[in-house]
Amino acid sequence: MNETMNTILTRRSTRDFSDKAVSREELELLIKAAVHAPTAMNRQTFRFTVLTRREDIDELAQAIGKTLGREGYDMYKRAALIIPSNDRDSLYGRDDNACALENIFLAAQSLGIGSVWINQLHGICNEPEIRKLLTKYEIPENHVVYGMAALGHSKSGEYRKIERTAQVKIF
Amino acid sequence: MNETMNTILTRRSTRDFSDKAVSREELELLIKAAVHAPTAMNRQTFRFTVLTRREDIDELAQAIGKTLGREGYDMYKRAALIIPSNDRDSLYGRDDNACALENIFLAAQSLGIGSVWINQLHGICNEPEIRKLLTKYEIPENHVVYGMAALGHSKSGEYRKIERTAQVKIF
Repeated sequence: MNETMNTILTRRSTRDFSDKAVSREELELLIKAAVHAPTAMNRQTFRFTVLTRREDIDELAQAIGKTLGREGYDMYKRAALIIPSNDRDSLYGRDDNACALENIFLAAQSLGIGSVWINQLHGICNEPEIRKLLTKYEIPENHVVYGMAALGHSKSGEYRKIERTAQVKIF
Repeated sequence: MNETMNTILTRRSTRDFSDKAVSREELELLIKAAVHAPTAMNRQTFRFTVLTRREDIDELAQAIGKTLGREGYDMYKRAALIIPSNDRDSLYGRDDNACALENIFLAAQSLGIGSVWINQLHGICNEPEIRKLLTKYEIPENHVVYGMAALGHSKSGEYRKIERTAQVKIF
């Protein structure tokens, strides 16, 4: 099996992050992977915002927790966060962002970095407390977030085999 | 640079497919990649339908062309088609399907197979002529299609460098 297939088949969501940081160089590789995702009609309307300071991510996690009524929400104490955003009017922005996130997850896996899709900003970007933070990080007012990548190193390094149950039919 | 990164950075959309078929073994690898994509809450509500007979894909392309008023639409004369579908009520089915498609595109690239996202079924799955064909291929009535993967071998093998323009900001 080639290395790319191996990366695809062994990627797992990580939720037990250690304190170890993700380096600037690694983050730049992940972003490079993200911007190379396909986009509808090659419009590339997405934008990528990276938070590396734990206090910044905690502040966002707290605002999310407050907005959703989930006191203590900590985004799995991840080391870094990539926030893809897109023009809310981009017809296929949601698909483009998901492809970019999958590129980030696979690139992370190939570098020995754990990752997980964070969904909590979906639908709440215009709540005042959330928008204030997005604006603080220069995310345009007309952008929304469909999913984010929490990143870090797995504490346990545990590999959980997941049964794949999707139905497949070849004609 | 590791092989996975190389695959991510060199993947391009292919639209100049040759007559060469994609083998059953290759298609099975692409499906394996697809079903290993992450899904929201690991629900795995997606389904993958593969069409390998040119006449079947042409029939679908013609129905799409008729529905959209695009006479002669031929889906780039691709050799095979993977149709991911998902329960229309799955909140994150669209994101799940995009991740699965990106896995297919990257797996294809790693195997020397060209691919391109086909968007034309998005929003028209319940048009009678389209639904009839989806049903013919056992796609459940409650499933919709957000995007498809057209597959084949590039005729020219041409590599077009695409400028990546997405804005990035690291904090």
